[in-house]
Amino acid sequence: MIITISRQFGSGGREIGKRLSEALGYEYFDKELITKVAEDTGFHEDYIEENSESIFNRFYPYTFGRSFVSYQQLPTDTIHIAQNKILKEIAKKDNCVIIGRSADVILMDYNPFKVFIYASDMNFKVERCYDKVPEDKTKSLKEMQKEIQRIDKERSKYYEHYTGQKWGVVSNYNLCIDVSVIGVKKAVEILVSLINK
Amino acid sequence: MIITISRQFGSGGREIGKRLSEALGYEYFDKELITKVAEDTGFHEDYIEENSESIFNRFYPYTFGRSFVSYQQLPTDTIHIAQNKILKEIAKKDNCVIIGRSADVILMDYNPFKVFIYASDMNFKVERCYDKVPEDKTKSLKEMQKEIQRIDKERSKYYEHYTGQKWGVVSNYNLCIDVSVIGVKKAVEILVSLINK
Repeated sequence: MIITISRQFGSGGREIGKRLSEALGYEYFDKELITKVAEDTGFHEDYIEENSESIFNRFYPYTFGRSFVSYQQLPTDTIHIAQNKILKEIAKKDNCVIIGRSADVILMDYNPFKVFIYASDMNFKVERCYDKVPEDKTKSLKEMQKEIQRIDKERSKYYEHYTGQKWGVVSNYNLCIDVSVIGVKKAVEILVSLINK
Repeated sequence: MIITISRQFGSGGREIGKRLSEALGYEYFDKELITKVAEDTGFHEDYIEENSESIFNRFYPYTFGRSFVSYQQLPTDTIHIAQNKILKEIAKKDNCVIIGRSADVILMDYNPFKVFIYASDMNFKVERCYDKVPEDKTKSLKEMQKEIQRIDKERSKYYEHYTGQKWGVVSNYNLCIDVSVIGVKKAVEILVSLINK
């Protein structure tokens, strides 16, 4: 059984995925994927972390020399290809929980249980960011909101670019949980009860 | 507590809402709303049923006499206004489960628990339609699929027209359940456990 967790930034998707994997005794993959992609591509982990769910801005280099850039494989494509290969290797091996990376679509043939974690309350996400990353506290509420929206926009563009589907549209998932109303603990409980049914 | 259930056609939203209201001892409103709107507007119940979640095609009459039609209140607007008034009266009274009618947005001030019920598997919906409405069995699989898509498109247009929001986008709801994977019984169980938490 493969459980994929797509998530809005700051909504607690990672925490839910981690707790779920522990409760079920499943493997867990999030940042663990970055190390594997780094080994495979030779890119630095920081660079991969920044680009593993975003797409290269193709318009910028095009204006400088279309003929040169347009036939090259872009670094984000290289990361995406390596990531896909690794996701499929993981999927073959064992029960697991995978966070993000369009795994819900990439692993479609493995019939994953697809979860979308989000928070209808923006303040919930801001508070979580402040709590998890102390240095974020230097950012104002407005700056944090903008940052959260920017990252979600990147994820959405990445998902749409590589899968052709819309991110955050219910029909792409099997269960979508608003953590700001339902809470992390209850979300995990529901998911455990569904997988163990 | 008000629970609103938005639902794809044929996904089992009505059945889940009905069972949920029975389990919780809540009032239940679906077709019951139609009778109330009929009393209020003088329109026939059948006409209301057909138009309570669809919008008037404004382009058609315009081509015949824009100046005459464009300042009139359209029948679908009359139904919508009466429906809103009734929804708010209901919301003031007691705990209830309300099916469709953009109640999630109309009753926003009452802080409802907003559920979206859908089925990622189209065959699940077709089978439910065949089971529930025996005369549908004269329709082919393709015809039923088209009919389901048409009704959902109407609901989506209605929701967008009167609320300004997108139907079926996760952030508008608190929990979105794919019944074709999770099942009616388990969906009700999850909802009861969330409301009773």
